[in-house]
Amino acid sequence: MKKFEEKTIQTEMKFQGRIITLQVDEVELPNGKTGKREIVKHPGAVAIIPITEDKKIILVEQYRKALERSIIEIPAGKIEPNEAPELTALRELEEETGYTTNKLQYIQSFATSPGFADEIIHLYLAENIVKVEEKAELDEDEFVELMHVSLEEMESMITSKQIYDAKTAFAYLWVKNYLK
Amino acid sequence: MKKFEEKTIQTEMKFQGRIITLQVDEVELPNGKTGKREIVKHPGAVAIIPITEDKKIILVEQYRKALERSIIEIPAGKIEPNEAPELTALRELEEETGYTTNKLQYIQSFATSPGFADEIIHLYLAENIVKVEEKAELDEDEFVELMHVSLEEMESMITSKQIYDAKTAFAYLWVKNYLK
Repeated sequence: MKKFEEKTIQTEMKFQGRIITLQVDEVELPNGKTGKREIVKHPGAVAIIPITEDKKIILVEQYRKALERSIIEIPAGKIEPNEAPELTALRELEEETGYTTNKLQYIQSFATSPGFADEIIHLYLAENIVKVEEKAELDEDEFVELMHVSLEEMESMITSKQIYDAKTAFAYLWVKNYLK
Repeated sequence: MKKFEEKTIQTEMKFQGRIITLQVDEVELPNGKTGKREIVKHPGAVAIIPITEDKKIILVEQYRKALERSIIEIPAGKIEPNEAPELTALRELEEETGYTTNKLQYIQSFATSPGFADEIIHLYLAENIVKVEEKAELDEDEFVELMHVSLEEMESMITSKQIYDAKTAFAYLWVKNYLK
C-alpha cells in the first residue's frame, strides 16, 4: 500500500513529550514537488468492549482535557513500551473496571486520525468477565466512573452526545450487529 | 459534562503549525494534585458517505504520511476557518469525488482521539449525488484515487486492512445497519 507515496526528504523534531511527539516531515509529493506534513507520533492504544453476564456494556466516564469536558467511552488505554496489545487490553480492563476475562477476542484495528497522527487503536471484545479480588490501580492522574448500560441506553447516550467518541460509537454498532 | 474537571493552571504553547498546534497544559486534578496534559489542537473535520444510484459507496485512496502507507477512506477533510461543517462536507465531496448532492444528511459527530487531541469529525450521508460539470480542484498537495464499492466489497477491504481507519469502519457498520 504505497500508492502516491510521499518520500521523506527530512524530518524536523518539534516536540518530545511524555506521551506524544510532534515532527514536521518535508516530503517529495507524487508530482515531484515538495510539501510539509505535521505528524504526531503516539504509542498506540487498545479499547475493550466488556460485556457482563446480563448483556450490559461497561463504560467509563472521564474528563478529557483536550475536549474540556467529560465523555463516556469504552475502556481504553495506551500501549506501554514492548507490551503486546492483548496484555494492554487485559491490564486496562482490570485497571479501569476491576474485571478480568478468560475470553478476550480481537475485533479490529484502525487509525484514529490518519490526517495528522499515527495512532492505531486495537479493539477487543471481553466476555465471561469476572471481578478481580484486588484490582490493579489506575494511573495516579486518572479518575474514572463506571457504568453498566444496555445497548438501548448506549444509543440514547449517543443521541444526547454523552457518548462523543469514535471508538465507542463504533463499539455500539458492532455490538448491535454481531452480539444480538 | 464537567465531572472530574481538570482546571488549567497554565498553558505552554510548544508548536504552531499550518494545521495543528501543540500545547502542554498544567492542570489541577480532582484530588488537588497537579498533572500535565499534552494536547493537539485541530480545526475539526468532516467525513461524507457518498452513495451512488446503484447503492455503491464512493471511497478515496490516498497516502497518509503519518502512517507511511496509503489507506482507503470515505471522503473527508478539514474545516476551513469560519466554514459551516455542511459546507465543508459539500466542498470536500466535490473536490475529492467530483460529485455534489441536494440530499446531505447529518449523521453524528465524534472525537477521534480524545486522549490527546480535540479533533471532532462530523459525519454526513450524501445521497442523490450527481457529477458536477467542472469540479473544484484538490489542494495542491493532495493526490487521491476513487473507487465505487459495494457493502460486501467494503467488508472484505476491512478484513484485508486496506480500510484501516476508524471513520470508515464506522461508516461501513452505519450503512449496513441503516441503509439496507
